[in-house]
Amino acid sequence: MQRSSFREMNCSIGQSLEVVGEWWSLLIIRDAFMGVTRFVDFQERLGIARNVLNQRLSHLVDEGVFERVTYQEHPPRYDYVLTEQGRDLWAVVVALRQWGDRWRAPDGPPLQLVHNDCGHIAELTPVCAHCGEPVGPTDVSVATDSAVAKPSVQRSSKGAQSRPEP
Amino acid sequence: MQRSSFREMNCSIGQSLEVVGEWWSLLIIRDAFMGVTRFVDFQERLGIARNVLNQRLSHLVDEGVFERVTYQEHPPRYDYVLTEQGRDLWAVVVALRQWGDRWRAPDGPPLQLVHNDCGHIAELTPVCAHCGEPVGPTDVSVATDSAVAKPSVQRSSKGAQSRPEP
Repeated sequence: MQRSSFREMNCSIGQSLEVVGEWWSLLIIRDAFMGVTRFVDFQERLGIARNVLNQRLSHLVDEGVFERVTYQEHPPRYDYVLTEQGRDLWAVVVALRQWGDRWRAPDGPPLQLVHNDCGHIAELTPVCAHCGEPVGPTDVSVATDSAVAKPSVQRSSKGAQSRPEP
Repeated sequence: MQRSSFREMNCSIGQSLEVVGEWWSLLIIRDAFMGVTRFVDFQERLGIARNVLNQRLSHLVDEGVFERVTYQEHPPRYDYVLTEQGRDLWAVVVALRQWGDRWRAPDGPPLQLVHNDCGHIAELTPVCAHCGEPVGPTDVSVATDSAVAKPSVQRSSKGAQSRPEP
């Protein structure tokens, strides 16, 4: 039913989905952001079969999203801790949560986050990292696509000159 | 291998994944943001089997993410147009793209977006809608969880009083 791999697809969304485009993976990552680190706790919270959880965690470790940190030698037991890559998935988890809060939570959000600094319910908006203005789908244009030669220099997106297509 | 449904899960991420937690769905939505509306164009761009594409588009129409707009009566042909719900998935698509650009694009991002207003490559950062400060995973606390009574009044997150847990 599904393509077996998106690795060949020259698209960052396809590449990301290759890693986390599976329901359990994102729910495991969600729980990790809530402080869960142990196999039994993931299992209990998610109601997931041991073999499936083991398979998903191993995949996420292989992909560099989690790292195993030994907390007991005999028998070996691990904490599963998000790496920098893993923590960087936060924006994905937040965006999914906010969409569900808006469109699939008729009785109100099941969970709310407070922004520690200002004390308000944390509703997050994507803004342009350069100018700070909110950015929506009609505020951007494609600068290059897969047909355009990829830069051979190290990518440095900020301040790059580019010619938006119409 | 997978739980058949997350509908029963009291979590907005689970609810969202129920709608778009499948690879093809998010890639179809990605293409829609690039201006694609027609079945044949989705098919060509994605290299997806007709029956799978038909199934995914029908699901997304049923879920209210796309609407069908007739452009030809005989035989019936439709444009698939993102609804407000669908357009609201933009933050999810952007977050996935940025993650892939950072962590799975060693030769540089395959596609770059320019912020029309400021002319810079659009790198988006989530900020607090209330105070405008950037917000990361350690900047928030859980205000309520599923064990807490859900508000019976219409949800209005901005400015709500809440007590963060430690």
